[in-house]
Amino acid sequence: MVSITIVALAGGIGASRFLEGLVCVVPQNKITIIGNVGDDIEIHGLHISPDLDIVLYTLAGVVDKSKGWGFRGDTFACQDLLGHYGRETWFNLGDKDLATHLYRTEQLRNGKPLSEITQDLVRRFGLRIRLLPATDKVLQTFVTTNVGRMHFEEYMVKRRTSPKVRGVTFEGAVSAKPTSGVLESIREADGVLISPSNPIVSIGAILAVRGIRSALKRTRARVVGISPIVNGKTVKGPADKLMRALGLKSTALGVAEYYRDFLDTLIIDRADRKLAEQIQQVGVKPVATNTLMRKKSDKIQLAKIAVSELHC
Amino acid sequence: MVSITIVALAGGIGASRFLEGLVCVVPQNKITIIGNVGDDIEIHGLHISPDLDIVLYTLAGVVDKSKGWGFRGDTFACQDLLGHYGRETWFNLGDKDLATHLYRTEQLRNGKPLSEITQDLVRRFGLRIRLLPATDKVLQTFVTTNVGRMHFEEYMVKRRTSPKVRGVTFEGAVSAKPTSGVLESIREADGVLISPSNPIVSIGAILAVRGIRSALKRTRARVVGISPIVNGKTVKGPADKLMRALGLKSTALGVAEYYRDFLDTLIIDRADRKLAEQIQQVGVKPVATNTLMRKKSDKIQLAKIAVSELHC
Repeated sequence: MVSITIVALAGGIGASRFLEGLVCVVPQNKITIIGNVGDDIEIHGLHISPDLDIVLYTLAGVVDKSKGWGFRGDTFACQDLLGHYGRETWFNLGDKDLATHLYRTEQLRNGKPLSEITQDLVRRFGLRIRLLPATDKVLQTFVTTNVGRMHFEEYMVKRRTSPKVRGVTFEGAVSAKPTSGVLESIREADGVLISPSNPIVSIGAILAVRGIRSALKRTRARVVGISPIVNGKTVKGPADKLMRALGLKSTALGVAEYYRDFLDTLIIDRADRKLAEQIQQVGVKPVATNTLMRKKSDKIQLAKIAVSELHC
Repeated sequence: MVSITIVALAGGIGASRFLEGLVCVVPQNKITIIGNVGDDIEIHGLHISPDLDIVLYTLAGVVDKSKGWGFRGDTFACQDLLGHYGRETWFNLGDKDLATHLYRTEQLRNGKPLSEITQDLVRRFGLRIRLLPATDKVLQTFVTTNVGRMHFEEYMVKRRTSPKVRGVTFEGAVSAKPTSGVLESIREADGVLISPSNPIVSIGAILAVRGIRSALKRTRARVVGISPIVNGKTVKGPADKLMRALGLKSTALGVAEYYRDFLDTLIIDRADRKLAEQIQQVGVKPVATNTLMRKKSDKIQLAKIAVSELHC
C-alpha cells in the first residue's frame, strides 16, 4: 500500500475497473473519487445516478461483472410490470437497483444534497473511499444529433449510439458549483488520476463544472491519465465516435491533446507506442503499458504504474 | 347475469373476496366500486393505496390469495436492500407491487388525479369495472392509542393492532370532496352494496367524505350490507376491536346500528340468527345465510343473495 492522498476523476464502467485496482494499491481512506453526474436522469420519477452507482457497486463487489452495471443476479420484476403499464423500459432498472434509486430520490426530496446521500451509501456498503459527485447541482449531458437533441442516456442506451452526433452540451454547467471538497481535494492531493473514461461526456462533464479544470491546472500534484482509447477505438462506450464528432482525433494522442492543459502523464496502451513521440510533443509524458483490464491482476498492475507516475 | 347498475362501497381484503363473487353475478360494466383511500400512505416517497390495489389485484386475478394483498409470487429484492440502507420495512412492498406505486406516484406528481390513474390501471388489467377512490383529495385514517397517535397502517401492519385504540380520525375528511361520479352513481344506482369491510376504518373513511353518507340516505336504491362480523368476531382485521373501542357493539347488531340511517338490509351469518330480531328492531331487514367466503362458490352465492335483496 502506498499511503498518499489521491484524487481520481471517474466516469462509469472503465473508471470502476481501474478503481478496483487502485483500492488494492492505495488505502481507501486516502482516495477521493470525483464522480460524473452528467448522465443523471429521472426515470419513473426516480433520480438515477448511473455513474455513481457503477463506481459504488463495483467497489462494493456487488456489481454484475458481465454487464458492468447493476447488481449481480438482479431481477427485473418491477420493470416488467411497468412495461405492462405502458411505461418505457429502455433504461434497465433491476429490483435491487431500485432500492438505491428510491433511497436517493426520497433523501433528495427531503433536501439532502446528493453528495451526502452518496457518502451515506458508500458507508452502508462498508467502503472507506470518499465518493464526491462533481456537483450537487443539476448538470445534465445532452447530445445534438441528426435526429434531434437528447439526453446522453437516451443516445447511449435507448438509441445505442446510432444517431450521428453534432455536439455535446452540459446543461446547468455554467451555474453548477463543485461539491464542497472537490476543489480542496484537487488542491491538496499528492496525486490526481484521470480514469480511463470517456473524455467528452464522463470526464468532460466533470471538467465542465466551474473551477474544476482550473484547479487541475493549478494543483501542485502530478496529474496522470489513462487513455480509454486503444488503437483508435474505445474499449467500451462511444468515446471514439464522440471525439471524432467534435473534431478531435479519436486516438490516445487526441486524449493527450484534450487534457494537455493540465495533464502531466498519459498512460497509453503498448499498441499505441507509435504515438508516444507526438504525445511528448504536446507536452504530456507518455507511458506505454498494457491498459486492457481483463483480470484483477491487470487492474492492479495498471494502478501501480499510474500511482508510481504520481511521484516521479 | 343480472343487468342492474350497482354501486359497491369497498375496503380491502373482505370487500375484494365479495366483489370476486359479484363480478360473476353482475356484468363488470354495470359495477361502480367506491374504494377506501383512508389507508393511503407514503412509503419511501411513494404514494401507496393499499385498498385500491387489493381490489384491483384481486379482480385482475393476480393477487397473492394466501395473503390477500400483493402479487402472487412476488419477490422482495428491493425491500431487502432498502432494509440494508437502514429504511423501515414493516410495510411489505413486493418488486412487482412497486411498479404500481411508481406508476401511481409519478402520475400524481404530474398532476393526474388518483381516480384517473386508478381507472387507467383497471383498464390495463383488462377489467371493465369502474373503481372510484372515494375522494381524489388527501384523506388519511389515524388512530389515537395508549401509545400515541398513528397512521392506521402503522397501527395495523407495524404494530399488528396491539395498541389500545381510543379514537379514530379521518384527516382531511372535512375538506375532502367526493370524486366526480361518486354521488351521481349512488343517486342513480339500481342498488347499493356495502361490502363486508371494516365499518369504522374502511367503510367509515368512505362515509367521512362530505356528502357520501347523505347520498346513501337519499338514494332511491335499496342499500344492502354484508356484516363483516360473525359471532362477535371479524373474519379478518381489527373491526371488532375498533368497534368496541368506539363504544359500539362488536356484533352484526352493532354493524346494523352503525349503518341504520341508510341501510335497508343487512346480510348476517347464520351463526348470528339470534340477532335477527334486534336488527329488525333498529329498522334494518336481517337476512341470515353463510357469509364465510372460503370457496369461489361461497362468494358467488353471497353475491347472488345480496343482489337479489336489491330488488326485493
